[in-house]
Amino acid sequence: MSARLLDGARVAASIREQLRPRAEVFAARAGRPPGLGIVLVGTHAASEIYVRNKLKAASDVGCRAELFRLPERATLADVLDTVRRLNIDEAFDGILVQDPLPSAMGSGASQAVFDVIDPAKDVDGFTPINAGLLSQGRSVLAPCTPSGVIALLQREGIAMSGSHAVVIGRSDIVGKPMAMLLLHQHATVTICHSRTRDLPALTRQADILVAAVGRTAFVRPEHVKPGATVVDVGINRVTDSGEVAALFPEGSPRLADFARRGSVVVGDVHPAVAEVAGALTPVPGGVGPLTIALLLQNTVTAAEARAGWSASR
Amino acid sequence: MSARLLDGARVAASIREQLRPRAEVFAARAGRPPGLGIVLVGTHAASEIYVRNKLKAASDVGCRAELFRLPERATLADVLDTVRRLNIDEAFDGILVQDPLPSAMGSGASQAVFDVIDPAKDVDGFTPINAGLLSQGRSVLAPCTPSGVIALLQREGIAMSGSHAVVIGRSDIVGKPMAMLLLHQHATVTICHSRTRDLPALTRQADILVAAVGRTAFVRPEHVKPGATVVDVGINRVTDSGEVAALFPEGSPRLADFARRGSVVVGDVHPAVAEVAGALTPVPGGVGPLTIALLLQNTVTAAEARAGWSASR
Repeated sequence: MSARLLDGARVAASIREQLRPRAEVFAARAGRPPGLGIVLVGTHAASEIYVRNKLKAASDVGCRAELFRLPERATLADVLDTVRRLNIDEAFDGILVQDPLPSAMGSGASQAVFDVIDPAKDVDGFTPINAGLLSQGRSVLAPCTPSGVIALLQREGIAMSGSHAVVIGRSDIVGKPMAMLLLHQHATVTICHSRTRDLPALTRQADILVAAVGRTAFVRPEHVKPGATVVDVGINRVTDSGEVAALFPEGSPRLADFARRGSVVVGDVHPAVAEVAGALTPVPGGVGPLTIALLLQNTVTAAEARAGWSASR
Repeated sequence: MSARLLDGARVAASIREQLRPRAEVFAARAGRPPGLGIVLVGTHAASEIYVRNKLKAASDVGCRAELFRLPERATLADVLDTVRRLNIDEAFDGILVQDPLPSAMGSGASQAVFDVIDPAKDVDGFTPINAGLLSQGRSVLAPCTPSGVIALLQREGIAMSGSHAVVIGRSDIVGKPMAMLLLHQHATVTICHSRTRDLPALTRQADILVAAVGRTAFVRPEHVKPGATVVDVGINRVTDSGEVAALFPEGSPRLADFARRGSVVVGDVHPAVAEVAGALTPVPGGVGPLTIALLLQNTVTAAEARAGWSASR
């Protein structure tokens, strides 16, 4: 184990600390705290945990978060109605619809929902206009996970300007906005994906390598230049004991975790990459807490911007 | 000279051929041709030529283009007023404000103007919502130059999927949308710019190299992998006889052009790259005509989409 661990949880805590006084000032001036409406459709074990964490984190920084539950059998129209009600409800500055929606709604459902969110309340940064402002380098509400990565790299002193950053993954919610944000930090940026030929030859050029593939331990030591900074966006729950045994060396505390809980959370980066990388975000405790911290930052920012107070940013 | 020349003028002509019947069908159904309003502020020699070419090309395919001239001393408010009038004028499906605006309007003027254009009439694809839809891979009106490059590569049979495309330049109107469009064609994409370290080492990896830097003959043979496809987006007018003599070999017809006219147009790619590249867009006659063809395509598409007729696309 040689890589310096980039402590996302600590940076997230420091971001939350800075949000608390902003939320207080807003509440004093507006007569109400910044408000976040979270829409959760159906029953999805991981979503329940994520939503609980978001609700708790919001109240910790002085925001008011409220959960709107819809049943598994809800229609797309039901979700759109809920979003439209939140759009016009002045008590809510941010609207988050927890992904994934029930698969019965069809593959385009999430985007259809994001498209009706008031861009001024779009704390996920998924609406087209916010994606466009991000691409043009003037976003107010940027997607939380890639913004969290930038905040982490900045606060950990990882130089981005002039570096070569390689992003594996081209999703609208992580890969593409991540590439744009790194570009605006003056990195040279390469975006790789499933059709990329000779991936290791490209990723080994990276000073900063961001893995956002959604495949357990996909990035292996041979993908990484010695000393590179590796950012692991993946959150994959592994329940197969053989798979876990192959991932972690004997004596690893992660094996004991697995024995106790029957599962472990593993990123998109293989644990052995820690022997090659210069710096690495752990999973859990790396990018995950930052995503929530940036969601809250977007909520406070949206509240201030809606009220016409942008000075505190 | 070994590189195959990618004949942008021919591909542009074929795109215009396909537009003519669409414009006719639209005119028959709507009782008026697709309409393009062009706003030109002040006197700018190159802009005059571009605008004249656009007006002529529009009428050639059966669109109606009208020029709205504002004096050099016009204010930003004057330009915004003109755009707002075109936004609500039903005879116009597309609005183009010719760049650059007079420098007295300030550096943010162009974006301020683009921001008020009705996205449904934004035939340049520069509004934030259209930039966002482009990033999300579902654009209707994409910026003309990068779309023109994709059309050229497709029609010339240059394989994009799985290739490594390197874009030099990160502007909102060429570099960034070019990268996104290549990504959606399943290329692995690298975006380089002025802060990029060891540019030749990166560009020599490119199967497809797009130069959008705005610097005369910037890309030299040492930047290019033998056999690569090189796309030259630059349009630079050179008036210095020493510079011209250094660019073109003795006996080149371009030297005779210069002797006759006192200037030549040179791209961002050095003429000697033709000895290394496998395929190359000439300047003039490469990307330039495609930009105009795609502007007209966007105008017809906007007309059809505004009328609710998207079947012909």
